[in-house]
Amino acid sequence: MATLSDIGLAAAINILSAFAFFLAFAILRIQPVNDRVYFPKWYIKGLRCSPLANGAFASKFLNLDFRSYARFLNWMPAALQMPEPELIDHAGLDSAVYLRIYLLGLKIFVPIAFLAFTVMVPVNWTNNTLEHSGLTFSEIDKLSISNIPNGSDRYWTHLVMAYAFTFWTCYSLKQEYEIVAAMRLHFLASEHRRPDQFTVLVRNIPPDPDESVSELVEHFFLVNHPDHYLSHQVVYNANKLSGLVKEKKKIQNWLVYYQNKYERNPSKRPLLKKTGFLGLWGDSVDAVDFYTAEIERLSRDISTEREKITNNPKSIMPAAFVSFKTRWGAAVCAQTQQCRNPTIWLTEWAPEPRDLYWENLAIPFVFLTIRRLIVAVAFFFLTFFFMVPIAIVQSLANVESIEKTLPFLKPIIEVIPKTIGASIPMKATFFITYTMVDGWAGVAAEILRLKPLIMYHLKNFFLVKTEKDREEAMDPGTIGFNTGEPQIQLYFLLGLVYAVVTPILLPFIIVFFGLSYVVFRHQIINVYNQEYESAAAFWPDVHLRIIVALIVSQLLLMGLLSTKEAASSTPLLITLPVLTIWFHRFCKERYEPAFVRYPLQEAMMKDTLERAREPNLNLKGFLQNAYMHPVFKSVDEDDTDVAMEEWEMEPSLVATKRTSKRSTPFSSKHGGSSLSLPEANKGSSKPDNA
Amino acid sequence: MATLSDIGLAAAINILSAFAFFLAFAILRIQPVNDRVYFPKWYIKGLRCSPLANGAFASKFLNLDFRSYARFLNWMPAALQMPEPELIDHAGLDSAVYLRIYLLGLKIFVPIAFLAFTVMVPVNWTNNTLEHSGLTFSEIDKLSISNIPNGSDRYWTHLVMAYAFTFWTCYSLKQEYEIVAAMRLHFLASEHRRPDQFTVLVRNIPPDPDESVSELVEHFFLVNHPDHYLSHQVVYNANKLSGLVKEKKKIQNWLVYYQNKYERNPSKRPLLKKTGFLGLWGDSVDAVDFYTAEIERLSRDISTEREKITNNPKSIMPAAFVSFKTRWGAAVCAQTQQCRNPTIWLTEWAPEPRDLYWENLAIPFVFLTIRRLIVAVAFFFLTFFFMVPIAIVQSLANVESIEKTLPFLKPIIEVIPKTIGASIPMKATFFITYTMVDGWAGVAAEILRLKPLIMYHLKNFFLVKTEKDREEAMDPGTIGFNTGEPQIQLYFLLGLVYAVVTPILLPFIIVFFGLSYVVFRHQIINVYNQEYESAAAFWPDVHLRIIVALIVSQLLLMGLLSTKEAASSTPLLITLPVLTIWFHRFCKERYEPAFVRYPLQEAMMKDTLERAREPNLNLKGFLQNAYMHPVFKSVDEDDTDVAMEEWEMEPSLVATKRTSKRSTPFSSKHGGSSLSLPEANKGSSKPDNA
Repeated sequence: MATLSDIGLAAAINILSAFAFFLAFAILRIQPVNDRVYFPKWYIKGLRCSPLANGAFASKFLNLDFRSYARFLNWMPAALQMPEPELIDHAGLDSAVYLRIYLLGLKIFVPIAFLAFTVMVPVNWTNNTLEHSGLTFSEIDKLSISNIPNGSDRYWTHLVMAYAFTFWTCYSLKQEYEIVAAMRLHFLASEHRRPDQFTVLVRNIPPDPDESVSELVEHFFLVNHPDHYLSHQVVYNANKLSGLVKEKKKIQNWLVYYQNKYERNPSKRPLLKKTGFLGLWGDSVDAVDFYTAEIERLSRDISTEREKITNNPKSIMPAAFVSFKTRWGAAVCAQTQQCRNPTIWLTEWAPEPRDLYWENLAIPFVFLTIRRLIVAVAFFFLTFFFMVPIAIVQSLANVESIEKTLPFLKPIIEVIPKTIGASIPMKATFFITYTMVDGWAGVAAEILRLKPLIMYHLKNFFLVKTEKDREEAMDPGTIGFNTGEPQIQLYFLLGLVYAVVTPILLPFIIVFFGLSYVVFRHQIINVYNQEYESAAAFWPDVHLRIIVALIVSQLLLMGLLSTKEAASSTPLLITLPVLTIWFHRFCKERYEPAFVRYPLQEAMMKDTLERAREPNLNLKGFLQNAYMHPVFKSVDEDDTDVAMEEWEMEPSLVATKRTSKRSTPFSSKHGGSSLSLPEANKGSSKPDNA
Repeated sequence: MATLSDIGLAAAINILSAFAFFLAFAILRIQPVNDRVYFPKWYIKGLRCSPLANGAFASKFLNLDFRSYARFLNWMPAALQMPEPELIDHAGLDSAVYLRIYLLGLKIFVPIAFLAFTVMVPVNWTNNTLEHSGLTFSEIDKLSISNIPNGSDRYWTHLVMAYAFTFWTCYSLKQEYEIVAAMRLHFLASEHRRPDQFTVLVRNIPPDPDESVSELVEHFFLVNHPDHYLSHQVVYNANKLSGLVKEKKKIQNWLVYYQNKYERNPSKRPLLKKTGFLGLWGDSVDAVDFYTAEIERLSRDISTEREKITNNPKSIMPAAFVSFKTRWGAAVCAQTQQCRNPTIWLTEWAPEPRDLYWENLAIPFVFLTIRRLIVAVAFFFLTFFFMVPIAIVQSLANVESIEKTLPFLKPIIEVIPKTIGASIPMKATFFITYTMVDGWAGVAAEILRLKPLIMYHLKNFFLVKTEKDREEAMDPGTIGFNTGEPQIQLYFLLGLVYAVVTPILLPFIIVFFGLSYVVFRHQIINVYNQEYESAAAFWPDVHLRIIVALIVSQLLLMGLLSTKEAASSTPLLITLPVLTIWFHRFCKERYEPAFVRYPLQEAMMKDTLERAREPNLNLKGFLQNAYMHPVFKSVDEDDTDVAMEEWEMEPSLVATKRTSKRSTPFSSKHGGSSLSLPEANKGSSKPDNA
């Protein structure tokens, strides 16, 4: 195992690199030319406008105020200043609650570390086991459980500590669950009217030989929710159309690129060298002409495809968004079973429109089940066979082995030198180093946004002509919950596992949580743009994963103590996971409903309030376009945008008059269907209808 | 291990005792005097009347038709003749589905046994491992997996068989789940109007300083289910009253006993010897006078207690039965969350009134959680420490050890003699013998109903005066689902575990399933009276337990094969439980909703039909008394019965007029509450109201 000075050296290296990142960030962020990379959120909010527009030429791109370089860490207190309610308002509840995970880490591990260093470290330190063992050891080993002789009564300390840590973790988890649930409920209650409050996603609509999907949906809900049904919107399979639109956009970028090139050097028309396969052969053509023609071709294809989707019943998926007259009606429909067969007419809350993954909307139930099976089996075998590389890494993690396996590293290792000869696999040191590289330097690198920075300047140079282009080139990105959360969970696992065994790891993890909290708070305030708002629906998963980490730590401790001939502690230790699982079940019953259900009382309250405030509300008009496939909104954006907006504003009565419902194959008697939307959009873009 | 002839001897003994039970049953059941013990179900249905009423004196008590003794097994085909739909009509769906568990056993194990005996037994038999092992062995051992040498390729047979058995079991389970779900849905759809279809049980009503429970319930549901709420009934804590009523009944029995005694011997008044503590001291008193006085005292106590319950708000529990105008409204309320806090205003389907356990109705959520924790911990430690007696029994199950531990058994063992010296613990033979004792002879004894037979004749002799008394002395009992189902599960477990290891066990289990099916079908048709009807709501548990047995058998086989040096089969075997768990999840998603939810479509269909058929239905009157505590119904049964019935028949309008709601402390403005019921009953028993 590494000595304290080795770890100190590694810490110095990582702290230096983290500092380097912060310094680079501090310099880059105050350059006006990078303003859109480091403050995109404010641009999106409309609270900041381009610094390039005014001032002297040089100061447009470079910051010449040298005093601002001196205060290069002042973004940190700034990031912490915005109070939480304002943060929720600014960046959404999801982001605010995501930050609370880091805070939870601090809340759990700071008292645990304090207790471990005041109680457990002295107990470990005042033994001589390692001195008598003949093994090479260091000061760090003396701090760990390895320094206690087998069968010693001192293991009672570790047992009591395990209980204390479990209790504290559970207590913090419970408190946090309570706070987050209250935040969610308050957020939902104070929310403005949103389409998803009134809408339910219905899947697996059974095929019917006599009726179209739209008619079937209408009849089913008119019969089974007669007092509440308002309207519905069927789901189209517009995947091909999306592809075409995406391609058109790409080609448009190339067109702009060549047009810019031509403008800068008008003497020479840019040529496309080879138009054949992979640009390997074919004739040279004029680039601007070529891409203009391509765009025309794609525009034709797009309108043909749109025609096809509208007229072909096969492009309608067995899914629909059904809207209700009240939140109460939607809450009832989303939480109940509609039909005798539980695999058809599946209802669930509609996610908010931005949160939809349209491509996957129509996967049949049986495919979903099979996919889940495949994922479960793959997960099992991945975990099972992942032990092989882990075993290899573990054997490598022994410095001597590294020398043997990778002899070319020998000179380097003979330098980082005292560690050579250590015979104990340096697992705890491995994780300490890992924490410093991934959790300290890695988090510091996050703030630099190297990839967006480069991409922005490339786009800015080649594509941007107008202020609108520049806005599009700005890529704020979103908070990477899918990658960030598992990283946090790893640190929770490490912290809980090593809390009793090698408490020296804890300070490093605390630094990770603190640093990440500041960095991500800064990024959420200044950079990321939230893609959608789930109102912290992810919290039950976060909670469950910390519980799993806790149970893993308890089982590992049980295994460790049984090898240490402290087997009499087993019954006491086995109670811990039982109690933890019970605690989880308690929390699930007590708090989880706030995240998966929508109480009728709340729905009724909002409905009543709204009826009193806006008795003449045109809800149908509000909901009509909400769940339209985004591709119908983006098609021919330039020429339909205005017409669309106009169309959206008008009450539904006019809309149903304007388009001939009789000519569409899925005409509906009650006028509740919004099926003829693409038709309507198309129509409204024509001059004689507008 | 025991030889074939040992097992043959045990089988002969058990078959003989089963036969003896059947013979005794055949003789006893055709005696007219036992008619009410062996055919109570028909008396309850009113389809059979006492044979004592007519015929000669002797033939009233004894069957003198000797030809009927010859056909002593003819009840067996008779029990099988009633078709299933008629059985459901006769004894309810619960009983019919319970019988299907035995049929499922036959369906699973007959093909498995066939396959095992044609494929696996020959593979086991044609080895010589045991002959070369130097161990004492018998023919039965040669049929089992023990006869295959370690690491042999023949284990592939067992692996393929394990897959085949799992596949067949899962297939049968899936088919059965489908059938039972369809039966349940059909049963529910064709059911008559029942109070529980319209009613929801609400628990954990939060305390309110300003309103009584009844008012609170009414306001809450008027606000949150304005179009559907009909009425409600609060729940009283009448446990003390129940106790008093029970005591009165007991003392009434004693009174009748002494009155009968006096009538038979009018010259001597029966005396109670000692009235003091445990009858040890005190004065002798006239028994009839003493018990008459006691009954009067209790009657007074009962009416005081009833008064107290009606007037004391503390005797109202925070629970209520809320009824809705439509099944749709009840289905919605039962399946949704009412309030932001998921631990208050808990709603669930009301069980049918007979299925209620009134004493437990008001346990708060937190106590429920704690009770579950205690049960979980107790269950864990019971299982954990149960290994100790199991280990003792296992060591005893070795014949040599029995001789050593219990030397006084030696002479007996030296006789049951060939088995002595067997060194392999006879586990499979143990279970074969167990099956024969518990599953063959035990089931045969069930049909004799020895305890009810004796009890009936004792009561008949000492207490019965009128035909009504005789009816009360008749105790049909109910099908013992709580004891019967675990017994079946044990045989499922044994069958699945030994199917691959020692298939010789299978025929014994098949005989158990067949015999039980006939016996319990007979008992359900002729004896048991169903207490309530859950419409086969227990099936998901039955399914889950067989799945658990299947997984246990797969894990045990994996362990066994790894000790047999056939470790290469582990990855293939580990796939089995994964697939089984997935199968279970699939079944859960596909079929379980039929058992726990009530689809809105079905509810709407029944509502619409009913509205068309009976447009003037007085639903409030129908529901008013349904969920009254049974003790209010049974108090002063003799004098209120008629008045009660009369009262129940009248429309609710009259009832609310007749009782002064203003004088009750929980008067309700909307007249929806049925809270004043005890009051009303009391009132209607008075002559000036009747």
